Amino acid sequence: MSDSQVEGQSVPTQQRWDQKHLVGLQDLSTDEITTILDQAAEFKRLAEEGKTKLSALQGVVVANLFFEPSTRTRTSFSLAAKRLSADTIDFSSSGSSLVKGETFIDTAANIRAMGAQLVVVRHSTPGAPHLLARNVDVNVLNAGDGTHEHPTQALLDLFTIRENRGSLKGLTVTLVGDIRHSRVARSNIWGLKKLGANVIVCGPATLIPRNIEKLGVRVSHSLDDILEETDCINLLRIQFERQRGAYFPSIREYAHLFGMNGDRVRRAKDDVLILAPGPINRGVELTPEVADGEHSVILSQVTNGLLIRMACLYLLHQYNKTQSD
Amino acid sequence: MSDSQVEGQSVPTQQRWDQKHLVGLQDLSTDEITTILDQAAEFKRLAEEGKTKLSALQGVVVANLFFEPSTRTRTSFSLAAKRLSADTIDFSSSGSSLVKGETFIDTAANIRAMGAQLVVVRHSTPGAPHLLARNVDVNVLNAGDGTHEHPTQALLDLFTIRENRGSLKGLTVTLVGDIRHSRVARSNIWGLKKLGANVIVCGPATLIPRNIEKLGVRVSHSLDDILEETDCINLLRIQFERQRGAYFPSIREYAHLFGMNGDRVRRAKDDVLILAPGPINRGVELTPEVADGEHSVILSQVTNGLLIRMACLYLLHQYNKTQSD
Amino acid sequence: MSDSQVEGQSVPTQQRWDQKHLVGLQDLSTDEITTILDQAAEFKRLAEEGKTKLSALQGVVVANLFFEPSTRTRTSFSLAAKRLSADTIDFSSSGSSLVKGETFIDTAANIRAMGAQLVVVRHSTPGAPHLLARNVDVNVLNAGDGTHEHPTQALLDLFTIRENRGSLKGLTVTLVGDIRHSRVARSNIWGLKKLGANVIVCGPATLIPRNIEKLGVRVSHSLDDILEETDCINLLRIQFERQRGAYFPSIREYAHLFGMNGDRVRRAKDDVLILAPGPINRGVELTPEVADGEHSVILSQVTNGLLIRMACLYLLHQYNKTQSD
Repeated sequence: MSDSQVEGQSVPTQQRWDQKHLVGLQDLSTDEITTILDQAAEFKRLAEEGKTKLSALQGVVVANLFFEPSTRTRTSFSLAAKRLSADTIDFSSSGSSLVKGETFIDTAANIRAMGAQLVVVRHSTPGAPHLLARNVDVNVLNAGDGTHEHPTQALLDLFTIRENRGSLKGLTVTLVGDIRHSRVARSNIWGLKKLGANVIVCGPATLIPRNIEKLGVRVSHSLDDILEETDCINLLRIQFERQRGAYFPSIREYAHLFGMNGDRVRRAKDDVLILAPGPINRGVELTPEVADGEHSVILSQVTNGLLIRMACLYLLHQYNKTQSD
Repeated sequence: MSDSQVEGQSVPTQQRWDQKHLVGLQDLSTDEITTILDQAAEFKRLAEEGKTKLSALQGVVVANLFFEPSTRTRTSFSLAAKRLSADTIDFSSSGSSLVKGETFIDTAANIRAMGAQLVVVRHSTPGAPHLLARNVDVNVLNAGDGTHEHPTQALLDLFTIRENRGSLKGLTVTLVGDIRHSRVARSNIWGLKKLGANVIVCGPATLIPRNIEKLGVRVSHSLDDILEETDCINLLRIQFERQRGAYFPSIREYAHLFGMNGDRVRRAKDDVLILAPGPINRGVELTPEVADGEHSVILSQVTNGLLIRMACLYLLHQYNKTQSD
Repeated sequence: MSDSQVEGQSVPTQQRWDQKHLVGLQDLSTDEITTILDQAAEFKRLAEEGKTKLSALQGVVVANLFFEPSTRTRTSFSLAAKRLSADTIDFSSSGSSLVKGETFIDTAANIRAMGAQLVVVRHSTPGAPHLLARNVDVNVLNAGDGTHEHPTQALLDLFTIRENRGSLKGLTVTLVGDIRHSRVARSNIWGLKKLGANVIVCGPATLIPRNIEKLGVRVSHSLDDILEETDCINLLRIQFERQRGAYFPSIREYAHLFGMNGDRVRRAKDDVLILAPGPINRGVELTPEVADGEHSVILSQVTNGLLIRMACLYLLHQYNKTQSD
């Protein structure tokens, strides 16, 4: 029984890795990004052989330190840790000692003192993971810091595109929606450029930051204009909960101008890939027909997210082992 | 040390099992119900030998998807999964992505994409587990859907009676209380009839659905009338939180007419079994004297609930293995 | 890979242990306290060899039953259980069956019936763990009961002092702050006296109970008066959430009179140890300079807390094994 699921299974490929933290794609080299994607591909291969429980992080403690609500990202990191046989602890902002006035750094220092080596952090303040990395001797994995970066989300997007196309080089990838407030957009831009893709950002003028062209991207305010030249479309979530101002007239108009629907898919390239970070708003960023259609790789992104997080946890742990040798 | 608790312990008895889901007892054959009870008995035997940690589900992910509050059932399923070495993830309605407008099916599809094969679902809408089973390629375990079914609760009731009496055949089992709103009653009726028991439903006229006789049960509005002929009495919980109408005059009158007390136990059969799904309201459905008395098997039910849930998770996983061979 | 973290690692030292429960230090002998500290030291030694995952409690279920909010203590116990390979279940007061009117004892009896042998309990009522120990056949670990005791906190304080000084014998230890409402103070007094330390309690007259001298401690209302003769200073948390009356004029005045700051550290003994149970209020009980300074062992306390809880879980489980032999 369970002969195909071997606890104690070791990981054959040993990638070279010199980063203590994963705080953002801006800080990573092209080689480093490729190493993470390759490691995730290795975990995918092992899973396909039925090796879903690996021993690589046995005896290691992974802490989730979430100061913003999250189910998917937190669960994905937890499950990634468990598949590597780590123990996990969860600190969320509600119900924690934070209500007793403890600072962010003190909380993290305490988690460290309890034995957590790898700390996954989400915080509404841009730069919070960097602050943590400078002040506490843990490996920090940024799970989203304000509007700054969300590196594992971008990595899973890159992985999913590469898996479908072999390479990112020369592809045109369009990010659609609220570029201004999106950490997913920011991390994607860094990663896509480093892997050789052409990037278009597309959305209402109010939702695209001035001067974003300086990052090496093109700007479009019409999805229809750039539809035919695009290889991959990444439909960012309308973050109802994060937008206090009135950046666009109505949901209906947004869906009409920037939503992906069957008609637009038919006018796009034959092999266009549709991505969305989720949770999707059906009928807003995309219609159910598109979400569930043949071009959509949305559920693959979720599956790949787990593999990317396993790869990140694994590589940071390898870094520690190299240091202590 | 711990030589009697062997991780990696395999499960000797291999039952034949052809169901992908466990959505209700209405859908199961007598043989299938018996297979689950036998498998649970096998797990009980192993536990008595000290084998409380088994490897059967190592590398498998079990997800709890609870859209109604629950501690006991959720904990019982989680612990059953852990005793089989599965990894577990918890999605509850508060604090999850559901607040971000994601649909029930999308949530489940995402959980599936993260690698969960076995999904335990509780939902206030009858039929929600069936909807899930039709739309997402997971094994669904119904942990209670509205007033429809709660199969593992009924299975543990059946197991507990069989364990004490050897067989259900020919026994008279009385379900007392709010039959109208009780998924526990509904699942019990299906299961008890299939295993050959005679079933009486007993409660105020307002709490017994019209035409319930069509299910092959007798109706009584007086506990005292049927007390002497009953072998097992299952005291359903008064669901204060689920009853908006005024179905009975007062708690005190309910306890007087339908509550089990020492006097009624003394007038019942010498070997009458007292069951209650819990959490019990002491002094309402039964007095403390009865709850803690020699006829009560309430805590055995809790212990058996764990074994039944282990059996259900195990058999559905076996189904998957058979399909993939 | 992971060759230094051996699941299945056994624990060499076998301590003699005859207590079923850990409810308070008042009930323990000097030898028993020393046994716990020695066992924790053994776990520390194993961790330093890289043995952070031990198999001692494989197949055992540890339940957290918390009726007061807690993150640190709960997480510390959970992690201790996981490092010993136990399965864990969490019952907290919010979202549990408790809202359905179930009693404390019924909840615990149900947890027992689900297979939990070791129950960690925190409750606002002094004596709740004793009530549990008398009524349900589990091993009770008190994680704080009202203003009564918090034994594992005191044990980790003792461990930390002993680790730094070799022995408690003859040391002068001062507990500073709200002695009246502090279960940490109460447990510390019992433990410190039993291990041969001299104890001073220091705080505003309103926060020191009458007749506390009967416990064998000295009372001081001035930190400055006793600063120079003190070997270890334990700065109790100002429990803003637990003090309804106005026991002291203001936070600022408290900090001025009883807070530890750089100036006071310089006037104290050269090797004075600064302890604090945390989470600390920086600028109240102590200044950041002191919290992060060379005399502070606050983070060691957190690390040692995990080891102490491992030791307590382990020894109570050993008790069960001895009984069943």
